[in-house]
Amino acid sequence: MGEDLFRTENEFVQWLLALAAPVHGHERVRALRLEKGVKLGIGDDAALLAVKSGHELILTTDMSIEDVHFSHRLHPAEAVGHRALARSLSDVAAMGGVPRYVLVSLAISRQVTRDWVSGFYRGMQALARRFGVRLVGGDTALVPGRTFIDVLVAGEVRRGKALRRSGARTGDQIFVSGRLGLSALGLRLLQSKQSGSRLRAKAATREAVHAHLYPEPQCALGRFLSGRRTASALMDLSDGLSTDLSRLCTASGVGARLWAAKIPGPNLPEAADSLQLALHGGEDYQLLFTVPQREASRLRLKFQGRPFYHLGEIEASKGIKLVMPEGNVHTLKPAGWDYFR
Amino acid sequence: MGEDLFRTENEFVQWLLALAAPVHGHERVRALRLEKGVKLGIGDDAALLAVKSGHELILTTDMSIEDVHFSHRLHPAEAVGHRALARSLSDVAAMGGVPRYVLVSLAISRQVTRDWVSGFYRGMQALARRFGVRLVGGDTALVPGRTFIDVLVAGEVRRGKALRRSGARTGDQIFVSGRLGLSALGLRLLQSKQSGSRLRAKAATREAVHAHLYPEPQCALGRFLSGRRTASALMDLSDGLSTDLSRLCTASGVGARLWAAKIPGPNLPEAADSLQLALHGGEDYQLLFTVPQREASRLRLKFQGRPFYHLGEIEASKGIKLVMPEGNVHTLKPAGWDYFR
Repeated sequence: MGEDLFRTENEFVQWLLALAAPVHGHERVRALRLEKGVKLGIGDDAALLAVKSGHELILTTDMSIEDVHFSHRLHPAEAVGHRALARSLSDVAAMGGVPRYVLVSLAISRQVTRDWVSGFYRGMQALARRFGVRLVGGDTALVPGRTFIDVLVAGEVRRGKALRRSGARTGDQIFVSGRLGLSALGLRLLQSKQSGSRLRAKAATREAVHAHLYPEPQCALGRFLSGRRTASALMDLSDGLSTDLSRLCTASGVGARLWAAKIPGPNLPEAADSLQLALHGGEDYQLLFTVPQREASRLRLKFQGRPFYHLGEIEASKGIKLVMPEGNVHTLKPAGWDYFR
Repeated sequence: MGEDLFRTENEFVQWLLALAAPVHGHERVRALRLEKGVKLGIGDDAALLAVKSGHELILTTDMSIEDVHFSHRLHPAEAVGHRALARSLSDVAAMGGVPRYVLVSLAISRQVTRDWVSGFYRGMQALARRFGVRLVGGDTALVPGRTFIDVLVAGEVRRGKALRRSGARTGDQIFVSGRLGLSALGLRLLQSKQSGSRLRAKAATREAVHAHLYPEPQCALGRFLSGRRTASALMDLSDGLSTDLSRLCTASGVGARLWAAKIPGPNLPEAADSLQLALHGGEDYQLLFTVPQREASRLRLKFQGRPFYHLGEIEASKGIKLVMPEGNVHTLKPAGWDYFR
């Protein structure tokens, strides 16, 4: 184990350079094959990239910090790499754009092994490859404290086609792209496994754990919604429905009404509090979008074989109202998941 | 002092939002005036930006980590903000590009005060304003460990005009844009002040300390060199001449000969080891470039009133030779400054 640690920054950088996978850093990587659109990859002062004419550039950064966004106890290295990139890809999906390039700043703890770093890149590269995204640069450091990751994704969207949070209008119908609260449930199951009890190897349980460790950014759907001008407002669900819908409403200057019975929760025997998980659980990375009423009636509630959920409507009066199955109406406060804090 | 710390992440984000200066984060900042080229600033899922047609995109990220790249003992908050951005602006200068946008990921330690964060942004914004660069996004977190900053700068360069490290050819002449080793000397003076002795308030001393705390990225010169196709290779001096020239030579597949008497060191009474500082001191952020011999003879050794220095030439045989004033020739090994490690 001791042999597997990096003793110096130079050792870390040299080892990274020797990895078969394209890596970043300030050194030239002679073997790096430059792909379409990439003029200059890893190894010069900066990455040099083509942006399609008639398009706008999307830039988003997301940090993944040890003991804040992930923990070595709960998250395998591959999942840390996957999740770090998924957060930024989801931001691009939320604008209706296509992700193209990624830069990774990685400050790894001296406690971290070569195996861990390999796994981290494997997880990130597998996701990047599936989404046609190229790792073109970044920065590296070996640090005494916690591991710190910052991922920058650059994407593009046809000029004028980006979807914002601020476009929701009174009467628009509210949709989400998939079930909510699965990731939060998956995290809870991982934590309970840690505390001694065993995960039942049921398919449903595995689904929740997988949703937490390997969330799927909804880029194709985001692109579809922006291309057809179907949605009036769009964002991704990173911090939980109650928090994120509240942000969308604030940005649009409106309120909302949600029908509790229509909110798609985990619906698993492990989740007695399915509605609470769906309302407040974070990191599902599903899309939240609003559609003008006229369009909504024509909307097929499916995309690429997977269902949408119609769970509420935009109202003029501020705040979010939650209509319970028995007809009671509660005020819903933002109470997004904040699990490590 | 205790009152000045942030107790929760939310307190940190709310306080940032209330700052007069544009700030980043996932919340909408209603007051943010969007400037030319910025379609969507801070507060949506990602920044949406225009890239000029006929141009390529430059992306670069640089981390600034407490106790690795800066220390609270030595660096005022304004200088930390300035230096964090200067590193990335210098990377854009080193491609011959124009910096346009900046995103900042800021994970601040719970030990950090509001005053510090204000100072950090003040230092960064002052530099950004002078270079016409806009802060358009980023990410924020409040963390138990060290403060961690990652700066992403996006710039642009006319298609085909970017200058690389790999273009140096045998016979090309080697230049730097200013005196070297000043930043390393400034750091040493700051450290000796810390250890009890007092900084003499001489202009020369102040110059070195200023060069360390507030380095000036050479963007105008980089643009000039790329525009006129004057330089065959270009990079910035971040890790010291011996290290960075060695990188340029490796990238270009060549070697180099330097004339010690021509290397512009700090030349201050405080620097008895002026040549060592100039060879190995890092963070000067001057430009290092090569010019074909024919062009070199025509080159005016000035830009915007400030001198260039002609200090060597590219050779076919690998490695760097240092010709001492008395005629001895040494082999120069990369030994860049690595002061915190």
